[in-house]
Amino acid sequence: MELTGENLIAGAGARGTAVFRAVDPSTGAVLEPEFHEGDAALADRALAAAEAAFPAYARTTAGERAAFLRAVAEELLAAGDALLERAQAETGLPRARLEGERGRTVNQLRLFADHVEEGSWVEARIDPGDPARTPAPKPDLRRMLVPLGPVAVFAASNFPFAFSVAGGDTASAFAAGCPVVCKAHPAHPGTAELAARAVYRAARRTGIGAGVFSLLHGWGHGVGLALVRHPLTRAVGFTGSLRAGRALFDAAAARPDPIPVYAEMGSVNPVFLLPSAVAGRWETIAQGLAQSITLGVGQYCTNPGVVVGVAGPELDRCVRALAERLRAVPAGVMLYGKLSEAYAAGLARSRNRGAELVAEAPAGAGPTRGAPALLATDAARFLADAALREEVFGPSSLVVKARDAAELARVAEALEGQLTVSIHGTAAELARHADLVEILTRKAGRVIFNGFPTGVEVGHAMQHGGPYPATTDARTTSVGTAAIARFARPVCWQDFPAAALPPALRDRNELGIWRRVNGAITREDVPSTG
Amino acid sequence: MELTGENLIAGAGARGTAVFRAVDPSTGAVLEPEFHEGDAALADRALAAAEAAFPAYARTTAGERAAFLRAVAEELLAAGDALLERAQAETGLPRARLEGERGRTVNQLRLFADHVEEGSWVEARIDPGDPARTPAPKPDLRRMLVPLGPVAVFAASNFPFAFSVAGGDTASAFAAGCPVVCKAHPAHPGTAELAARAVYRAARRTGIGAGVFSLLHGWGHGVGLALVRHPLTRAVGFTGSLRAGRALFDAAAARPDPIPVYAEMGSVNPVFLLPSAVAGRWETIAQGLAQSITLGVGQYCTNPGVVVGVAGPELDRCVRALAERLRAVPAGVMLYGKLSEAYAAGLARSRNRGAELVAEAPAGAGPTRGAPALLATDAARFLADAALREEVFGPSSLVVKARDAAELARVAEALEGQLTVSIHGTAAELARHADLVEILTRKAGRVIFNGFPTGVEVGHAMQHGGPYPATTDARTTSVGTAAIARFARPVCWQDFPAAALPPALRDRNELGIWRRVNGAITREDVPSTG
Repeated sequence: MELTGENLIAGAGARGTAVFRAVDPSTGAVLEPEFHEGDAALADRALAAAEAAFPAYARTTAGERAAFLRAVAEELLAAGDALLERAQAETGLPRARLEGERGRTVNQLRLFADHVEEGSWVEARIDPGDPARTPAPKPDLRRMLVPLGPVAVFAASNFPFAFSVAGGDTASAFAAGCPVVCKAHPAHPGTAELAARAVYRAARRTGIGAGVFSLLHGWGHGVGLALVRHPLTRAVGFTGSLRAGRALFDAAAARPDPIPVYAEMGSVNPVFLLPSAVAGRWETIAQGLAQSITLGVGQYCTNPGVVVGVAGPELDRCVRALAERLRAVPAGVMLYGKLSEAYAAGLARSRNRGAELVAEAPAGAGPTRGAPALLATDAARFLADAALREEVFGPSSLVVKARDAAELARVAEALEGQLTVSIHGTAAELARHADLVEILTRKAGRVIFNGFPTGVEVGHAMQHGGPYPATTDARTTSVGTAAIARFARPVCWQDFPAAALPPALRDRNELGIWRRVNGAITREDVPSTG
Repeated sequence: MELTGENLIAGAGARGTAVFRAVDPSTGAVLEPEFHEGDAALADRALAAAEAAFPAYARTTAGERAAFLRAVAEELLAAGDALLERAQAETGLPRARLEGERGRTVNQLRLFADHVEEGSWVEARIDPGDPARTPAPKPDLRRMLVPLGPVAVFAASNFPFAFSVAGGDTASAFAAGCPVVCKAHPAHPGTAELAARAVYRAARRTGIGAGVFSLLHGWGHGVGLALVRHPLTRAVGFTGSLRAGRALFDAAAARPDPIPVYAEMGSVNPVFLLPSAVAGRWETIAQGLAQSITLGVGQYCTNPGVVVGVAGPELDRCVRALAERLRAVPAGVMLYGKLSEAYAAGLARSRNRGAELVAEAPAGAGPTRGAPALLATDAARFLADAALREEVFGPSSLVVKARDAAELARVAEALEGQLTVSIHGTAAELARHADLVEILTRKAGRVIFNGFPTGVEVGHAMQHGGPYPATTDARTTSVGTAAIARFARPVCWQDFPAAALPPALRDRNELGIWRRVNGAITREDVPSTG
């Protein structure tokens, strides 16, 4: 497929005044074609199209919406080698990783299709009325979730499929019944265009209007802020840096009518090593950490950026083993130039703040490389200097050596909100360190026992989120079926005739969904009061 | 019981530098004793106490928390006449209304106790692991809601029990497992102190630490903003004016770590009259509207402030009947001086903007009175002037006359977010006006057919909330059991040993709650994989 480089407004190409080109990070080569930057005027057109498409899309049945989601999955697969090759050229990610990520993206779309068909996500609640109640008749109340309206989705650079154009935010918004206006990540604009065209093909063959999707390009902040500030935008999904995420959050909060922003902004994903772990399982831990730190050249939100243990010869032995493994991992191609520059700057910052460089892999040849590195510091310094607690995005980690269990707990207390926290030890240690576990659980969206944070399973029970600054909304997840609730709100119908009620709320449970009737969860029909 | 007039920090009295006294709005008489205003230092002490109490309170079993909630209900009843008399003196509300409201408050606490005991509100989700999966083992993931931490609750003036110290926000935060620091409404500080003492008695006799509750007084914004800005505060519940609610929202959004603000800020609760309603049921509608407009001297968030119909002799007849009934309702005592002044100013503003005064009841004798009033305007003026669409808090309504059905829809489109929208007509008309119903549903948290918005049922299916500016968070409700989710967030445990998991997430479903296991909702145990 020929790339046009245009913004896509409800499927129609739209040029802009400024252009840019993608770069192959592995070679520095500039890629064709030119891409047109979106602007406020195009954002307005995209949101007008989304708003126009919303009523019909919100009315689609679960089956229709599921068919659309599954068709998007099929079209992503049908995009074949062209999609994978463009993604490889734009991101420097290996082919096998990209195939795996596309598979994950396809499964995610299908999981949301299944979830929408199962149907209970609307959280139907029915309190039947009682006209005979005294002193006042009891009204008939029926409540369920309805879609919010047009959603602005900001694609991430580090998952060109799974957190990009047809990734989790788009899938969950579509599943909820919301049109999407997507801001493509400028590091992979061609991949974005190909994925967008897959979305349009899926819409066309399942009878969904093209207005449910638009794609805007751009490196600048202008078009993104225009999306967030637009009066028709009802919610925002974002994965990226703290600085960019906070800017979108602030813009949304400053609107005349504030809207929710679901920004996933990463974290340092601390790994706590309890005594038995460093004493007994140190080799396994060194191996697991080295893999987790260097996976995807460390470009994961869940990359373990901090490792905490009690100082001593056993921790030193574990750190030496980890250092040795990291030195052996070749430098990798990072996603784009600014990212590899920021990685180098982050390592320099930590060293300037007194962290000791324990190991560094060779820098490697070619542009945009990131070499694995391990730093270390003592807990006192880590506690005294917030700069050491900031995320360094890339294949490095900082070992923090505490004097004793009490200082371990102080390190835990000093942490900001995290996507994940991992704890290594025995079940007996978990019980003995219950206070530490409680502190860590309060800081994180996901707590992991004897494992490593990378690898975010897409399922029903996943929580990918956490207290600020991991995200701007710890009450939600950006991975897994629970993400659908981000793009919906409850409405209660009072004393409505059955024909005017959504099918999910009628006495006869024709959808077969789980509902809360008079407070009890059931799939039975509502008993007739006639 | 003797009132001390002190702030209550975890049960201990604390004086302030400034003092104020309550006023009986029906007479203007100043009431004893002096009340001490809280300040930032007391807010800090209260939140430190809440934070210290949080871990133990979060660990309480459902049964312990339910017993506490039921004990609060019992102690409110046991506070007896002293509580009702003080509330009557401070609010001017009639005894019968206050008794009814206390009953509602007690039922609300008991409903949350039942809901916590039923237990499914934690939304447990379990995706069991599969160590044999290839290429990578599937981790064991278990997710549920956990309490957020200390919550700041701002009491409302218009419900001295149900939306005050031991009202819905406090009950739902306690139910979720969160300590509460309550900012008393300064118009009923004595009622607040008595209710706070009931909370402490309940805590004492159910073994809950007094740190779970504190009460701060004050007319100024200082103490409230100090609560919202305090680093330990994890969420905010508020019912009151748009101006005050937005100020709290802005302060929370500007924090280094933003926190959710659930501000319910009222609305105009439009009532749409379709042709058959004004033709056939005009007398019933006039009667219902007159009751709803004047109930509680119009001091409800759900007061119907706008009535919309198609101009013509039938609408005129209905308006005349409504005007006649409103003229016959005596002026009532409003809650406090500023409120009756704002009511008079609001009516004057609407008249200055060209709304015609159709009817006004006699002003009545005594201070702080609000007399029922009816205004009218045409849709063109209503559409052109946003000031006419603003809430006038008190016993009045504005009739908006549209030329035809198309202009009715334009009025609907022009409305901001609402707590409620009511539609009067026949079932056939609902179907004929599907587009209008869709517009209105998008604007509101609750849509009512052939009824009136006042009277907010406390149950499972209630939605009391709506798009901004009705609230700052349309995804939640401040009335009904679903409110508990406002004060919780999900945590996912990965590969944790059973003993270290919360009971709700263990294989054996010992709590008997509904859970989503492998995506299917069930009360069965998790099948053993051993």
